[in-house]
Amino acid sequence: MENFIFHNPTKLIFGKGTIPQIGSEIAKQGYRKVLLLYGQGSIKRNGVYERVISSLKENDLQCVELSGVKPNPLLSKVKEGIELSSKEKVEAILAVGGGSVIDSAKAIAVGFYYSGDIWDIFLGKHSPEKALPIFTVLTMSATGSEMNCGAVVTKDETLEKYSFVSEHVYPRVSIVDPSVQFTLPAEQTVYGAIDTIAHVLEYYFDGSDSEIQNELSEGIIRAVISTTERLLQNPKDYEARSNMAWSATVALNGLTGAGRRGGDWSCHRIEHALSALYDIAHGAGLAIVMPAWMKYVYTSKPAQFERFAHKVFGIIEKGEEGIIKGIAIFKEWMKQVGAPVSLEDIGVEEKDIPKIVDNVMALGEPFGNLRMLYRKDVEAILKIASL
Amino acid sequence: MENFIFHNPTKLIFGKGTIPQIGSEIAKQGYRKVLLLYGQGSIKRNGVYERVISSLKENDLQCVELSGVKPNPLLSKVKEGIELSSKEKVEAILAVGGGSVIDSAKAIAVGFYYSGDIWDIFLGKHSPEKALPIFTVLTMSATGSEMNCGAVVTKDETLEKYSFVSEHVYPRVSIVDPSVQFTLPAEQTVYGAIDTIAHVLEYYFDGSDSEIQNELSEGIIRAVISTTERLLQNPKDYEARSNMAWSATVALNGLTGAGRRGGDWSCHRIEHALSALYDIAHGAGLAIVMPAWMKYVYTSKPAQFERFAHKVFGIIEKGEEGIIKGIAIFKEWMKQVGAPVSLEDIGVEEKDIPKIVDNVMALGEPFGNLRMLYRKDVEAILKIASL
Repeated sequence: MENFIFHNPTKLIFGKGTIPQIGSEIAKQGYRKVLLLYGQGSIKRNGVYERVISSLKENDLQCVELSGVKPNPLLSKVKEGIELSSKEKVEAILAVGGGSVIDSAKAIAVGFYYSGDIWDIFLGKHSPEKALPIFTVLTMSATGSEMNCGAVVTKDETLEKYSFVSEHVYPRVSIVDPSVQFTLPAEQTVYGAIDTIAHVLEYYFDGSDSEIQNELSEGIIRAVISTTERLLQNPKDYEARSNMAWSATVALNGLTGAGRRGGDWSCHRIEHALSALYDIAHGAGLAIVMPAWMKYVYTSKPAQFERFAHKVFGIIEKGEEGIIKGIAIFKEWMKQVGAPVSLEDIGVEEKDIPKIVDNVMALGEPFGNLRMLYRKDVEAILKIASL
Repeated sequence: MENFIFHNPTKLIFGKGTIPQIGSEIAKQGYRKVLLLYGQGSIKRNGVYERVISSLKENDLQCVELSGVKPNPLLSKVKEGIELSSKEKVEAILAVGGGSVIDSAKAIAVGFYYSGDIWDIFLGKHSPEKALPIFTVLTMSATGSEMNCGAVVTKDETLEKYSFVSEHVYPRVSIVDPSVQFTLPAEQTVYGAIDTIAHVLEYYFDGSDSEIQNELSEGIIRAVISTTERLLQNPKDYEARSNMAWSATVALNGLTGAGRRGGDWSCHRIEHALSALYDIAHGAGLAIVMPAWMKYVYTSKPAQFERFAHKVFGIIEKGEEGIIKGIAIFKEWMKQVGAPVSLEDIGVEEKDIPKIVDNVMALGEPFGNLRMLYRKDVEAILKIASL
């Protein structure tokens, strides 16, 4: 195993009926005025908004609202949040929503203390030294943002979808009540599952090897696969919802990355171009990119891809035959649960590939870890992904 | 899944060559004078002591030493530590050793702020509100104490081996350098492995059920089994040492207990009587108790025991046949790697059972979770364990 530091200070409160605890958790830490950040209104339809507001009131917390955060969250909304937070002198941010809302909250939290352009932080030109404290109520399990220190945001004008990490943006407290996800559309459940699997695989296929880490990773993926199938049968299956929610959290809270090589993250980088340019769900983009990337790079560590095929899908064929079969079954499974698995499936044609490649390469080359990727490699991967 | 809170604030620094970081980690948090607590001198033989001392010096930290903590650590030493810490006005405790040293440090840390008898805390008569900050350098992986908030200590006069948990005793920083375990005697490696498996099983067999938690638990156990075998072949196999060390940490840092029913802990309770009375290693006692307990209680949730047999040992027989076979193979495996697996193996006879039962029952009855155990049940389990 590689050396690592595991230090995740987030307090995660998990389970049915836990949302009313949010007010006292904020008050306990001495904050009196929060920015309440949310998305496009689903929390008003599923009752989460009401529960949050009454918990804030019961704890005498003042609250300034900002709504309208979109999936693939935009920098313009982050800037609006920074401005509003400064004007209103809020002391903390309460993000109520999925990964896009929490990620936006993280960007607002560091932007609050930075006088320059917030985009500098995404470009690595400025490293945040401070952030407003963040509290979250999660309404969609996928990104793991409720218990990690990363955020991804898209710049409106340039459609660059970039990320930053900072130890200062671990949420202080996150509340995960899986029952509020009963009403998620099936496709959002599926994309959340695929995002979770992708987080595990970014580390699993980063060139490192560790028996305990491989075991934990494969276990999470198998659990996510079986849980997804249960939820497509019955979206109100609490046992399945809670297993999915906890799987998504542990997939990216430091556990799966411990002792690895920092992850590969090529699939995420390539996908970010897709969701930035075509505004598709991140999970949908990952379903398209992952099998293509796997096909392109497996020769760099065939044993790990063979192991994946065997341990996750029970494939007994060895060597290349098993590897190819594993990737094919993985792709087929994502298709069966309703994800697009090729550029064609989302209406993108081969002629559009150069534009996607330009977007991917904007942050420079090479990137990746298991295999360093250059422009020509990304082109080749997208060609494999086209059908 | 059951509702739960996951909140583990310990910063774990893991890997080769990390021990020299301890001084700066303590200094960074503003402490200037520490109690350096350790065991019976192995850290002077394996070079850990020197590395710790020079790191403390480099960071201008004052240090008061207290050594002589034994396996199955004694309350008298804890009291000595409390007295010394008060007299010397230390600001933090640095525990360098295995679980017994770290557990003693936790007891000293809360005892420092409690004017009554420290044993009150173990009896649940007093709940600590404060503790000295704890830092650790782990030299033997087993108890997971480096990243949790529990401690077990034995009262010298009465041979009661009791525990307490308090959120105030999570170590601030723990350093785990698996390479310092190269020189552990084989039996200590084995007992550490068995303790790790026991921690996983206490939660696995607590009557709860969760696909993701079952997957993570089975993965840890399989990894520990294969890693133990590698270490018996080559104690200096760093890859195996690091896998074992991380497995031991995650087995009891909150991960395996998430969404469960708090664990069963009957095997630990019964074992504590054995190690208190006969001063055997905790892992040795667990190897004796676990298979007997499993045989006695499996009818309370046969599906989980069948799953254990199948997922951990690949047993294909269903129902009772598979369950019994699974328990037998588990016992046989522990025997093969060198653990005692019956009371007979440690020279305890059937006529001694009443004395053991008395010790077990001193904290009252019933206890347990999957099955509530009374005096007669403990007697029956120890009878099964006798051969």
